[in-house]
Amino acid sequence: MTEKPENSQYRGIIPPMITPLKNEDELDLQGLHKLIDHVIDGGVHGLFILGTTGESTSLSYALRHGLIKETCKHVNGRVPVLVGVTDTATAESIRLAETARDAGASALVAAPPYYFSLGQPELIEYYNYLADRLPLPLFLYNMPSHTKINIEPDTVKELSKHDNIIGLKDSSGNTAYFNKVLFHMKETPEFSLFVGPEEIMAETVLLGGAGGVNGGANMFPKLYVDLYNAAINGDIEQVKKLHALVMEISAGIYSLGRFGSSYLKGLKGALNLLGICNDYMASPLHKFEKEEKDQLESNLREIQKKIH
Amino acid sequence: MTEKPENSQYRGIIPPMITPLKNEDELDLQGLHKLIDHVIDGGVHGLFILGTTGESTSLSYALRHGLIKETCKHVNGRVPVLVGVTDTATAESIRLAETARDAGASALVAAPPYYFSLGQPELIEYYNYLADRLPLPLFLYNMPSHTKINIEPDTVKELSKHDNIIGLKDSSGNTAYFNKVLFHMKETPEFSLFVGPEEIMAETVLLGGAGGVNGGANMFPKLYVDLYNAAINGDIEQVKKLHALVMEISAGIYSLGRFGSSYLKGLKGALNLLGICNDYMASPLHKFEKEEKDQLESNLREIQKKIH
Amino acid sequence: MTEKPENSQYRGIIPPMITPLKNEDELDLQGLHKLIDHVIDGGVHGLFILGTTGESTSLSYALRHGLIKETCKHVNGRVPVLVGVTDTATAESIRLAETARDAGASALVAAPPYYFSLGQPELIEYYNYLADRLPLPLFLYNMPSHTKINIEPDTVKELSKHDNIIGLKDSSGNTAYFNKVLFHMKETPEFSLFVGPEEIMAETVLLGGAGGVNGGANMFPKLYVDLYNAAINGDIEQVKKLHALVMEISAGIYSLGRFGSSYLKGLKGALNLLGICNDYMASPLHKFEKEEKDQLESNLREIQKKIH
Amino acid sequence: MTEKPENSQYRGIIPPMITPLKNEDELDLQGLHKLIDHVIDGGVHGLFILGTTGESTSLSYALRHGLIKETCKHVNGRVPVLVGVTDTATAESIRLAETARDAGASALVAAPPYYFSLGQPELIEYYNYLADRLPLPLFLYNMPSHTKINIEPDTVKELSKHDNIIGLKDSSGNTAYFNKVLFHMKETPEFSLFVGPEEIMAETVLLGGAGGVNGGANMFPKLYVDLYNAAINGDIEQVKKLHALVMEISAGIYSLGRFGSSYLKGLKGALNLLGICNDYMASPLHKFEKEEKDQLESNLREIQKKIH
Repeated sequence: MTEKPENSQYRGIIPPMITPLKNEDELDLQGLHKLIDHVIDGGVHGLFILGTTGESTSLSYALRHGLIKETCKHVNGRVPVLVGVTDTATAESIRLAETARDAGASALVAAPPYYFSLGQPELIEYYNYLADRLPLPLFLYNMPSHTKINIEPDTVKELSKHDNIIGLKDSSGNTAYFNKVLFHMKETPEFSLFVGPEEIMAETVLLGGAGGVNGGANMFPKLYVDLYNAAINGDIEQVKKLHALVMEISAGIYSLGRFGSSYLKGLKGALNLLGICNDYMASPLHKFEKEEKDQLESNLREIQKKIH
Repeated sequence: MTEKPENSQYRGIIPPMITPLKNEDELDLQGLHKLIDHVIDGGVHGLFILGTTGESTSLSYALRHGLIKETCKHVNGRVPVLVGVTDTATAESIRLAETARDAGASALVAAPPYYFSLGQPELIEYYNYLADRLPLPLFLYNMPSHTKINIEPDTVKELSKHDNIIGLKDSSGNTAYFNKVLFHMKETPEFSLFVGPEEIMAETVLLGGAGGVNGGANMFPKLYVDLYNAAINGDIEQVKKLHALVMEISAGIYSLGRFGSSYLKGLKGALNLLGICNDYMASPLHKFEKEEKDQLESNLREIQKKIH
Repeated sequence: MTEKPENSQYRGIIPPMITPLKNEDELDLQGLHKLIDHVIDGGVHGLFILGTTGESTSLSYALRHGLIKETCKHVNGRVPVLVGVTDTATAESIRLAETARDAGASALVAAPPYYFSLGQPELIEYYNYLADRLPLPLFLYNMPSHTKINIEPDTVKELSKHDNIIGLKDSSGNTAYFNKVLFHMKETPEFSLFVGPEEIMAETVLLGGAGGVNGGANMFPKLYVDLYNAAINGDIEQVKKLHALVMEISAGIYSLGRFGSSYLKGLKGALNLLGICNDYMASPLHKFEKEEKDQLESNLREIQKKIH
Repeated sequence: MTEKPENSQYRGIIPPMITPLKNEDELDLQGLHKLIDHVIDGGVHGLFILGTTGESTSLSYALRHGLIKETCKHVNGRVPVLVGVTDTATAESIRLAETARDAGASALVAAPPYYFSLGQPELIEYYNYLADRLPLPLFLYNMPSHTKINIEPDTVKELSKHDNIIGLKDSSGNTAYFNKVLFHMKETPEFSLFVGPEEIMAETVLLGGAGGVNGGANMFPKLYVDLYNAAINGDIEQVKKLHALVMEISAGIYSLGRFGSSYLKGLKGALNLLGICNDYMASPLHKFEKEEKDQLESNLREIQKKIH
């Protein structure tokens, strides 16, 4: 087990990396390298692979283990790498964690197990059991829309006592909840509280959040880093200006097509249009058809004009 | 139908008033007057009666109509009065609205009908049908946890075209949603966007929201007005300081007891402890038992020390 | 309070009556009389007005009270009349109940209050409070899709101890739940357990259920009575034959159009096509457009051929 | 791909086998053999491994592949073996399926992917994609409480056209839904429709269902086989008598403790008390504490007296 740092090193913009794929079973390695260099050049403070945005649960384990190794190797210590080990089977979470440790990753991220419905006491038991067995520090990952359970503020507080649990990524979108957790944890500022949805990153950082695990930073890393810095500096005018661009991305890139998967399809499609990587999506998701892709391209070009 | 104002008069802190009751069938009139004077003295920008915090759906219609008249009479034009007309039967919503108009209220607020599950097109049809028949301008009221439907950003945009629909109160707590609506409506700033949960009021005002319909303003109106003003002025240090007090209220007053009703029980109990009004709650809710009330009192006294 | 009967008089087919309307504010009285005579002639064992199928929550209170009086007067003791008093305000439930008692109705039906989310202990408190104040015996009404709460088997058992609570109508469609309640209540067979969805009436009666509160009995009362009798008699071949017709009605009449309201729109439209009453629906619902109505007519004619 | 049989061989009682474990990583092989012999001696028509009852999603892949081989080897053709391949990653589903084919299993079972929320068209695409690649015929598995999606009757009908999709196991508990699917599929009786919850097995078989995938058949296989046969023969008196025993099991074994996992904990605990196998549960679930285990034992002994 690692020692918990006095002041967390985890702050800022940590993109939840999409996973560039050639097909169901094969990484787009060239795309992966290009994407990694692109976001690091943009100034991000770390990378998070194998999250929801990375289609983690759709990938074979061979591919997940391979992605961990390839990413850590190519990053080569330039920024910390966080690795998603979310799984319904703790044995598989631990195997992924060991690969991550061997490859040089810095920390792990795990959402609650997402098949059985658990109560909060069962959730506490689960996370303590898991954290006891992980070779790297762990971020909790709140994702109620996908896991069917909210990690309640009292549960976060209880789990924060574990030496190996160092923070929370909240993707609920519910800042009333997030602010309650922030308040609950006010005595332990080294416990890092990140939000997922980029639409709320600026305001949570203004009020004490640690940063954003924002999908859009795959495309425009510098924009999100600049927005984070503006928020840290309390520069409200700059925050408003850059936040408006993020909202433009949210409306123009993530809201095409039907179904809950429009965010992922739009993001991966845009990265392809930006020349960074392939836009193949692993089953059960599928990339956009031509009509939506054309609309996406048109929106993306408009947004690019405003950003550069 | 009224003419839609170029610049909305609706901004700031508009407390969702609790309904002081002597028993199931009778208003605590003295308490009501005291409460009204208390919040107006605190500088609030309007009052909202017959919302969720006002236990509207638990009150008989005779009592609801009576409350509208008494409130408007006692307010006597000092601030605008907004009246909740949320109902599953449009005929009853219209009757409440007519009483509100006759009594001198300024605007109406309606959540979606909450028994049948509607689709978004049915929701649009419903609101247009209702707004056509209302004698005062209407705020939409998004309350998905209670009504089982979210008023989607596109639906808000579509409904905002109606001359008699002038704003939205969002009580979802989801600021990712709220920011999407703000962005969608950026061309029509006279359409007022309020949030319900006080835990997120400051940050939404910082980024363009119109204000808060915050329960805590029943107790400490000046605190919420000061926080609103700090946010409007972009005074981040003051925002952080006052927001921390609001979070203390949220943790100490609203989170006792089990079940979703802890917010309401805590708020009404605290108003009783502050000497403002009775704490009787209409069925199906019930006030706290002694143990929780003692805890509430202890927390309240701590908070009072920090506020004054 | 009434005395609880040793052997319940409530068994068989009790149609949840649609409410014939001329417009938002006016009963279609001629249609109402025709519909009442039609179902009584078909042999039903009782009538249930002001349920979900009766659009109760969409009707003004004046209209609800009027409907109770008109129905009881026209039924004139031929069969028992059950009256829905489901409301978020207990004061209004009690007023409806008093009108029902004065008009000669036999029993009341109430779903949980459907705005606030309650826990099971709060639900027990609510029903005991209500049943204490009702002048007629009460059926619980389980309708989780609309009320956001399931009346758990233990809660049913607890509430069945109240002298004024005599049965349950379960509209969940979940017969695993229904069978658990049946088993829980096996020592008190006088507590009547009805199901709502006609698709499961036959099988629940085969295994001990009291009968069905089935919408289709508005159209074809004799079919449902015959199916009930076949099930009571354990005549499996006849059950299968008649159940297949009910499933044909379910598929052909209730499944047109989009949204959860297709059942109600189909049923009311079919009654209009059968020449029984007007098909006006109260806001927020609306009757079918021409295309769906044509399809409905075609399906209805096919079904009629098979029934007669 | 296999040829679809004219008359399905899949009928009757197919226990969803619990997975006997020594610890997180190791099968209780002796227990597994004993359990297999126990249920086959009881007359069951097949076995289903790696379902929800088998804690499939909590097991490492190594263990899952091992279980498939061990089970098929020990069954040795005495009854058909169905293998659960439910997974969020199709690549892993296919790998499990290949092991199943090599080991001599008869068919596969897959619930929808349970992390991303899909729409019905996406679900159709998913199942067609999967079935195209599977070396054995597939049963759909409806489990909305765990997967967040209901396989709608129209979707079942559409998917039934695929040569490699041969039936449905419905664990929703909602027989209104199940009867709609039965009616939808009435022209293709070779498409087998099973239910999961044993509380509804008898009634669905009475009305045309193919049988039950009932957890209780791990403990008392003969009881469930007898009940199935009584239902097939339309022997209502025998059905009622045996169904009452099943309800006693449901109430006495599956309803102890808190949380949704009480069914699994009770079932596995009872198998241990019956001397069949270990009761270790894989994380995130845990076996009962002493108090609940004592209550379980007392209930089990009562039930045993009534069965033998």
